[in-house]
Amino acid sequence: MRAAMRIALVQMKTVAGKEENYRKATEFVARAAGDGADLVMLPEMFACPYETKNFPIYAEEEGGAGFLSLSEAARKNRVYLVGGSLPEKDNEGRIYNTSYVFDREGRRIAKHRKMHLFDIDVRGGQHFRESDTLSAGDSVTVFDTEFGRMGLNICYDFRFPELARLMVLRGAKLLLCPAAFNMTTGPAHWELMFRSRAVDNQVYAIGVAPARDEESSYISYANSLVVSPWGDVIARLDEKEQIKQVDLDLTRIEAVREQLPLLKQRRTDVYEIGCLNERKEAEMP
Amino acid sequence: MRAAMRIALVQMKTVAGKEENYRKATEFVARAAGDGADLVMLPEMFACPYETKNFPIYAEEEGGAGFLSLSEAARKNRVYLVGGSLPEKDNEGRIYNTSYVFDREGRRIAKHRKMHLFDIDVRGGQHFRESDTLSAGDSVTVFDTEFGRMGLNICYDFRFPELARLMVLRGAKLLLCPAAFNMTTGPAHWELMFRSRAVDNQVYAIGVAPARDEESSYISYANSLVVSPWGDVIARLDEKEQIKQVDLDLTRIEAVREQLPLLKQRRTDVYEIGCLNERKEAEMP
Repeated sequence: MRAAMRIALVQMKTVAGKEENYRKATEFVARAAGDGADLVMLPEMFACPYETKNFPIYAEEEGGAGFLSLSEAARKNRVYLVGGSLPEKDNEGRIYNTSYVFDREGRRIAKHRKMHLFDIDVRGGQHFRESDTLSAGDSVTVFDTEFGRMGLNICYDFRFPELARLMVLRGAKLLLCPAAFNMTTGPAHWELMFRSRAVDNQVYAIGVAPARDEESSYISYANSLVVSPWGDVIARLDEKEQIKQVDLDLTRIEAVREQLPLLKQRRTDVYEIGCLNERKEAEMP
Repeated sequence: MRAAMRIALVQMKTVAGKEENYRKATEFVARAAGDGADLVMLPEMFACPYETKNFPIYAEEEGGAGFLSLSEAARKNRVYLVGGSLPEKDNEGRIYNTSYVFDREGRRIAKHRKMHLFDIDVRGGQHFRESDTLSAGDSVTVFDTEFGRMGLNICYDFRFPELARLMVLRGAKLLLCPAAFNMTTGPAHWELMFRSRAVDNQVYAIGVAPARDEESSYISYANSLVVSPWGDVIARLDEKEQIKQVDLDLTRIEAVREQLPLLKQRRTDVYEIGCLNERKEAEMP
């Protein structure tokens, strides 16, 4: 396993029109690769302004134009690419909030459909109902790279400690989360969530959000960040569109796990988290 | 259910000699009750300086002098009393880190034996091995009051999101945690842990630690605190010996659960936390 890894957080601003976003993402991936990134990560719904009515309009099947542009960007630039997320249409017309991951050859090596749909209604704050137009996935997603195993989930998924734990019990050493918190939940819970998942699971936790657009109906909090397995925030952006390169020392994961052996000291004789859909996962395309 | 509740955090300094600590605790409970507390909470190992060699020396069976002084303090002052923790000896000579809870009549209504023993070795930081002299409990502990159901665990137990979730799935609306973080883990993780458990589980999270004693071999971080179900730190003490009264609005719990319905949106068709020792729990004394 390689222990030194450079990741690039692409905090891009999503605009109207998916082709323009695909083009921008491709450019950002090339720039990030030029600066030595091993893994490039895009935000949730980077090509579709975050509104429920847009998801059906912007949706494509796996293998569509957005998927292909990501695969090509990964291959051309020889990077791992975590393609934020895109609205994905399946062959029965259901739409998912889906993240594809590509390796340095442009092969799709993972796919996560957001498992927890974001339906909230904070008094005097944010209202949103993804379930108006989206369906939920039901798989726990991990994938292997030359840097070790990583877990992948999307935004609201990361609110649920069970899912993070399941990814880690399956061997994930980094938890990746394309996301888009808002101006209510962001200041309140964004950093807290990434720090607590990192500390509880002794992993790097990495979140990439769209840059803030005050004109949009859903205003992204932005603040893409990287948290170490000890809970230190080692990078945190502001609200503007930008790329941030961050160098990770992956030996830190085992060092923390040895000194504070939380994962070993779980009382699995008293409790355990069961995953109830192994069969469904095996059937995933 | 009563929705307005006053709790008192008794951040007392533990001294050598258990009788002196029992006496101090009794005084503090009377003072807290005089200021209108409904529930008074003491720190972890409030009567035993936190060193593994002390646990056997200070240990008493349930019903011993420490237990009786707590029961009497609760009864006399008509308060709920979460008796921090004491080293408890069972009839086979095993020793536990045990928290007793008493109602306003002085009846023991709950008992939690620390389930996760604190064995850590941070390079350049804290070293400790509770398991040198302590045995671990294996029960999830909740209890009922006129203010609703509460969960109880001790310090390192709270590091494990599974246990917090199990208490909440059994109906706990407040999670109580007598604890004693140190000068390595305290600054790094103390507030983070209470805030994340509160937000993930949409409960009040309350931690009470011993006051800091720079002369002791294990230096308590202190900083006893109360976090709201939205993750706001509504009280946080410094390092000195003191009592802090905090008024809780328990209607906040349901309000947060309604606006951000995390507990309802758990994907129990995909995962669930099982508790594997229901039988053992039923046998608990």
